[in-house]
Amino acid sequence: MKALILSADNFEDQELFYPFNRLKEEGIIVKVASMKQGTITGEHGYSINADMTFNEVDPKDFDILILPGGKAPEKVRLEEKALEIARHFFRENKLVGVICHGGQTLISAGVIEGRKATCYIGIRDDMKCAGVLYEDKEVVVDGNLITSRHPRDLYAFGRELVKKIRNPVGIR
Amino acid sequence: MKALILSADNFEDQELFYPFNRLKEEGIIVKVASMKQGTITGEHGYSINADMTFNEVDPKDFDILILPGGKAPEKVRLEEKALEIARHFFRENKLVGVICHGGQTLISAGVIEGRKATCYIGIRDDMKCAGVLYEDKEVVVDGNLITSRHPRDLYAFGRELVKKIRNPVGIR
Repeated sequence: MKALILSADNFEDQELFYPFNRLKEEGIIVKVASMKQGTITGEHGYSINADMTFNEVDPKDFDILILPGGKAPEKVRLEEKALEIARHFFRENKLVGVICHGGQTLISAGVIEGRKATCYIGIRDDMKCAGVLYEDKEVVVDGNLITSRHPRDLYAFGRELVKKIRNPVGIR
Repeated sequence: MKALILSADNFEDQELFYPFNRLKEEGIIVKVASMKQGTITGEHGYSINADMTFNEVDPKDFDILILPGGKAPEKVRLEEKALEIARHFFRENKLVGVICHGGQTLISAGVIEGRKATCYIGIRDDMKCAGVLYEDKEVVVDGNLITSRHPRDLYAFGRELVKKIRNPVGIR
């Protein structure tokens, strides 16, 4: 299995690294894509190598999409290729895990109307305006879409993500 | 099951939070102990609440000990009560997970002579002087003792930790 993380500078460090390591724990290959190849750095100073640009991604190669939060999604959501990648995962009903501000990319991709989800409280009303059935819970699972609010929810996010990977029944 | 993390200010953030969340994922109760109760803050600015002081810990209440790295272990290793806690886990052959500079606490506790382990390369020679059979690997499992080198190894550290929790056979 292969997972793809879409992010950029000023990502929320734990929200990128927890799923990155957690999926690797499961033996899943994890790639990071950004506007440019090379190092991207989180708000807390951790760096990671972007393996490829958004343009270089063929989303058919990946089974799982992860959208971490931080300030990165306000940049990622402006990249049409990143939005196309997100749309592919929804169209194909593949697993998508989104934390915190990661939901901003889903709003711009136009893929979350009518979906149950959670997010960082500061963008709650944007999610609602985009048609999300918002729930204030540590993790919300709606078919292929798994969402959490902030780094303190990561244990629940990881648990539900891996549960769905091991038993994909119920991805609608 | 209950896990105990011993740390202090200037812990390595991911090395504390990855096992913290990973063990919570497994349904394990995780407590943090430090010199004083209240917030401790990592090198990268993440904070966590210390539930209790070292003096308040009864190690018999816990099944797993985690020693994250960063600059914290150079403080923790000076606290006799913290060393007594570490010795309890070795004497009782309970599971101990140690990353990076966390090994400094084990050196001061006098519990690692003749044990296979890894650590941050900067304290490698201190570990060897203390009698450790050092291995430069992402994770070393020696009975009850699981060690890793740095944050990039966390996926392997988590994998072996959870494997041992689910199947404790082989804890010597």
